[in-house]
Amino acid sequence: MSLTLVIGDKTYSSWSLRAALALELAEAPYTEVLIPLDRPDSKARILEHSPSGKVPLLKTEAGPVWDSLAIGEYLAERFPEAHLWPRGEYARALARSLCAEMHSGFAALRSHLPMDLKRDQALDRMPAEAQADIERICALWAQCRERFGQDGPFLFGHASLADAFFAPVAARLRGYRVELPEAAAAYVATLYQWPAFQRWYRAAQTERLE
Amino acid sequence: MSLTLVIGDKTYSSWSLRAALALELAEAPYTEVLIPLDRPDSKARILEHSPSGKVPLLKTEAGPVWDSLAIGEYLAERFPEAHLWPRGEYARALARSLCAEMHSGFAALRSHLPMDLKRDQALDRMPAEAQADIERICALWAQCRERFGQDGPFLFGHASLADAFFAPVAARLRGYRVELPEAAAAYVATLYQWPAFQRWYRAAQTERLE
Repeated sequence: MSLTLVIGDKTYSSWSLRAALALELAEAPYTEVLIPLDRPDSKARILEHSPSGKVPLLKTEAGPVWDSLAIGEYLAERFPEAHLWPRGEYARALARSLCAEMHSGFAALRSHLPMDLKRDQALDRMPAEAQADIERICALWAQCRERFGQDGPFLFGHASLADAFFAPVAARLRGYRVELPEAAAAYVATLYQWPAFQRWYRAAQTERLE
Repeated sequence: MSLTLVIGDKTYSSWSLRAALALELAEAPYTEVLIPLDRPDSKARILEHSPSGKVPLLKTEAGPVWDSLAIGEYLAERFPEAHLWPRGEYARALARSLCAEMHSGFAALRSHLPMDLKRDQALDRMPAEAQADIERICALWAQCRERFGQDGPFLFGHASLADAFFAPVAARLRGYRVELPEAAAAYVATLYQWPAFQRWYRAAQTERLE
């Protein structure tokens, strides 16, 4: 077995974080290649590994797998005993619906509150469309927790790819000091206590950025 | 079994087309609910079915499944004998990588060449970033066809979700009369000869739009 994950800066690269958390869920050993983003040679260095020009990318024995969602599905299949998706058919479908909505949506949240794991400061003014994204996300979290959260503090009880996908959102909500409903605040706290997330978060705190 | 697919206009809604093709691949009977987009009541009518405010959405006995990618994965699991994904582990991972890249990427192609199944006219000028998207897509198609296309004319031989995801791209390339390398043109022709796509395409030709 030989897996290499190509990622961007831990402080900023939210999609890299999702893929790394998927690998943590799978308990899969892997080598990390970190390419600092937004530097003159970043694009060239990424293209050496990734024809899409983007991170994250997972190198496998058979070839590259890229994009956080495809990496998650690949690992879920390759490590079935780790149950990266929830076990029930509909719970799994709902988890995938959330991940897919995150994958292509919430543009206002993503542009106005970019992930910055060193940040601890509110925005001067929260744009209305970002606030709407946050309310939608809190409603989704509540829906999953109520229906499928009995067996643990994560969205579907046990930690799953859905939590990997929303961990960077939790980091935004905390880093930008967003006021949240009680249930959502509790879930953000759960993610901050997740050892897999903590390892990445701590590495980000000491990461040197130019 | 009871499945209902909520979609937008067949002429324009490329994500709806992807979900409908997934249902065709699964050979799953379903009821269609079509909500015309860009009308004063469109948003309200979509929200009656879909809390994300978007189409497509698949109603199942257990609850809603939304977003074309999650719908595809749900159907692949529910109808395993239909092999919605390619059979090999890496072929499947590559197919998912392509679908995920399509799902969150190719913004220039999508904004400058929106799907319009009634269109048959070139752009006055192809923006460079849209041309770059097209070249990337043609390279991806060639890569899949070369490595996994032996058993048929689709990206992975037999028709799969990867073809469902790129059918709207084929419709753009033809509708905007984009000049293509021979292999890509042949693949576009394959999609236009795909009965599942033809049914949707014909329905679009007679669709009344306001």
